[in-house]
Amino acid sequence: MNVSLDNYKPVLPKVKAAIAEADFVAIDCELTGLQLAEHQLSLLDNPQHRYGKLRKAAQAYRVIQLGADAEAQSKVHAEETVYVARPFNFYVFPREHGELGRRDSNFTVNTGSMAFLAGQGFDFNQLIYKGIPHWNNRQEAAAMERTAGNRQKADIPEDDQNRDYIKETIEAIDTWLQQSSERTMTVAASNGYYRRLVYQIVRNKYNGFLVAQGKDMAVEVKRLTVEERETVAKHAGNVSARAALIDVDNVSDVVRAIVKARKPLVGHNCLTDICHIMQHFWDDLPESVETWKQTIRELWDRVIDTKYLAHHHTHLSTIGNTALGSLVATTSVAPFKNVCAKIVFADGFDRYIGASDQYLHEAGYDAYCTGAILLRMACFAPHVSQQSIMDILDENSILRCTNKLYLMRSELRYLDLAENEQVPSISDPTFIVSGVPRHLRTDDLRRMLVSLGAADVRWVDEARCRITLRNADAVS
Amino acid sequence: MNVSLDNYKPVLPKVKAAIAEADFVAIDCELTGLQLAEHQLSLLDNPQHRYGKLRKAAQAYRVIQLGADAEAQSKVHAEETVYVARPFNFYVFPREHGELGRRDSNFTVNTGSMAFLAGQGFDFNQLIYKGIPHWNNRQEAAAMERTAGNRQKADIPEDDQNRDYIKETIEAIDTWLQQSSERTMTVAASNGYYRRLVYQIVRNKYNGFLVAQGKDMAVEVKRLTVEERETVAKHAGNVSARAALIDVDNVSDVVRAIVKARKPLVGHNCLTDICHIMQHFWDDLPESVETWKQTIRELWDRVIDTKYLAHHHTHLSTIGNTALGSLVATTSVAPFKNVCAKIVFADGFDRYIGASDQYLHEAGYDAYCTGAILLRMACFAPHVSQQSIMDILDENSILRCTNKLYLMRSELRYLDLAENEQVPSISDPTFIVSGVPRHLRTDDLRRMLVSLGAADVRWVDEARCRITLRNADAVS
Repeated sequence: MNVSLDNYKPVLPKVKAAIAEADFVAIDCELTGLQLAEHQLSLLDNPQHRYGKLRKAAQAYRVIQLGADAEAQSKVHAEETVYVARPFNFYVFPREHGELGRRDSNFTVNTGSMAFLAGQGFDFNQLIYKGIPHWNNRQEAAAMERTAGNRQKADIPEDDQNRDYIKETIEAIDTWLQQSSERTMTVAASNGYYRRLVYQIVRNKYNGFLVAQGKDMAVEVKRLTVEERETVAKHAGNVSARAALIDVDNVSDVVRAIVKARKPLVGHNCLTDICHIMQHFWDDLPESVETWKQTIRELWDRVIDTKYLAHHHTHLSTIGNTALGSLVATTSVAPFKNVCAKIVFADGFDRYIGASDQYLHEAGYDAYCTGAILLRMACFAPHVSQQSIMDILDENSILRCTNKLYLMRSELRYLDLAENEQVPSISDPTFIVSGVPRHLRTDDLRRMLVSLGAADVRWVDEARCRITLRNADAVS
Repeated sequence: MNVSLDNYKPVLPKVKAAIAEADFVAIDCELTGLQLAEHQLSLLDNPQHRYGKLRKAAQAYRVIQLGADAEAQSKVHAEETVYVARPFNFYVFPREHGELGRRDSNFTVNTGSMAFLAGQGFDFNQLIYKGIPHWNNRQEAAAMERTAGNRQKADIPEDDQNRDYIKETIEAIDTWLQQSSERTMTVAASNGYYRRLVYQIVRNKYNGFLVAQGKDMAVEVKRLTVEERETVAKHAGNVSARAALIDVDNVSDVVRAIVKARKPLVGHNCLTDICHIMQHFWDDLPESVETWKQTIRELWDRVIDTKYLAHHHTHLSTIGNTALGSLVATTSVAPFKNVCAKIVFADGFDRYIGASDQYLHEAGYDAYCTGAILLRMACFAPHVSQQSIMDILDENSILRCTNKLYLMRSELRYLDLAENEQVPSISDPTFIVSGVPRHLRTDDLRRMLVSLGAADVRWVDEARCRITLRNADAVS
């Protein structure tokens, strides 16, 4: 189900209900970029190095599509195990919001990532015109404070120039309140001065039951519902800031719902995604990798990376390519198919019915695929298909693969959220060669080393190689 | 006329012809952002400060739409003065290009600028799917070098895995060369490895008369024209890099044509636009403002900023609001209308016929408006309407306003491209007040100072004010 500004408000309760009912939630992000040129990943990164680089990238780039698939075992099918998928595909854009404003409003875009998304048919107009904004906890608190600060500013005094405008605006609002049942009305306001006048009128004359929000060349005035008024009343110290915030669409509410429901979080090769989700939809990423791990543990009891699972679960060693698309294909046929439970889409989630590769790299579809391969691999791995997914996830061989995030291009194979990573020991003679000329390829290096016997050549970064000789005698 | 990847190649000769015939070229840019938060403009900026801040912004942000309006006095109308407008509106995007690549491929986007453009109906899909790429001189040279470097890499050796693919590709190209008159053919290449194989085949077997360019999941192979082959032959030392570059769409060619034709450059409040045009379509901006001025003087004999003209020409002192839209309105009626020459659109340039505000902030339309207000103001200012525009631009009162760029929010009123700026002397008592609390407005400050008599309050930046007292006795 595609979700944008057009339908976020009515859909959000369905999102929360789907999450509350789910056995787990699979997530995926599309981003404006992946790595920063000045923070390239290195084979030799230790956990703090690697996390530090991903943190910088998460601060610079933005999530532009968030996929969340809430998967629940069906209770209506008694004779067979059936899972029900509810994949949501959110367009996300860090737009500014009327009075709340946003100070840190620059972000970084990578042209290659844009070209890649264009190759997948990504709709950039939908993104920028209709993307749902987001404020993480720190940003929301800052917006509250800023809004409260704005409210302390002296009101614009009534004078000859604005008297008519103020009078007409009050009359228009009163007429609407008395004669119309529409929830909103629009007051024309061609610039910031007039918008401020409208905010001021709503604040001083209708505070507590109306709320104003800036639109293009206008201000929208809206009646608060009874519940909204109660929430406003509870925060009496900061009434109007809270009233404005209540009405703000904030896609962080989706992530807050996942956290609140304490559902297992599932992703595929998801370290980068999780860093972005935390940075933009939860709170600023901490500097230290240990603090970050602790935060994750507080938010989620278990995180499962399906790429780690595919690589490291002992029963899955026959799987070759662990890219998401390949895994979907591999787990759709025997021997996985034989033990795999059935997955159906809930009513209203028909976008991906019968879909194949055409939706790959749409966040909602990738989240759905991730949920599907978890179900297929988890059911296959312990060779038990008829019990509940939660029982299967509690199985020891799966638990051993839980809370471990796959690492690309690293001699550490994973980040362990629960404890310290094991640094692999290398007993064969190993050298780091620096300043490797740009035009040399791995094959060229292997040819140069042929007299030393079998050599493992891995790139540390663009100009450094790690060479491990299998024949220790060659250098003894 | 909208120009994108779809029609850039056939339209470029028309662009060059229009520029060659023009009396002047008016330009405008739409950008991904304006100011950087860490380099806010200050009232007290000296020329180097101000230029340095704009240079940083031009390095971070990108041009996404370039407007160029070539205006020429009609030779076919004998009895009246008629100008012919040819406004081009280029969608511009810094996309990567097959073998050439692009290293500095990150850029900065401001959410407010995106929201502003969305408010104007900007088509972001057209931008990212169809925007024309650009390489400035330094980037083009680097791409050449990189391409040449790539070519030095050892070829991928033929082996059992790629033998069939190589054979089939050569057969397909040979068949196309022998049997088809199509200028291009496409070879499927699902990843970088296969693309490299195709480049390698074209380079080694067809070098000098075919050129290969990466597409999505494929490589396009193209016959070179006779002229292209000659150009390639001239650069024998670097044949294939040059061959690849020849075929690259590069919107910098538009700016190079303006420079080559030595046409006057006209912009409205155009300091930022000129910095961006130089940075992205000419060469990296130099660090020093003096070197930058020297470069501009080398590129253009005269630059006219219509906002400066409107503010500072003695005959135009009755003009109130100098925003582009207001100036268009003001100069469309008496007394301007009485002396104003007629402006018509050339054949094929019908997009803006009868247009009014709906196209404002589309770069092509803003460039057209800028050209139009120059013609109207310049004809009005010297009170002579029947001579050629070039004679009018040579008139002393216009020359005094030439090569001066308007400065917003600055106590310098302009940057002078020809000499040093005059720093205005202030004889009245003047103070800089730092640490002004956020919530105070100009009116609040004036009220606080009321006992000191008339005071001029101007913001230096977000937390500093400059206060000038008109009554020196108050502080003597």
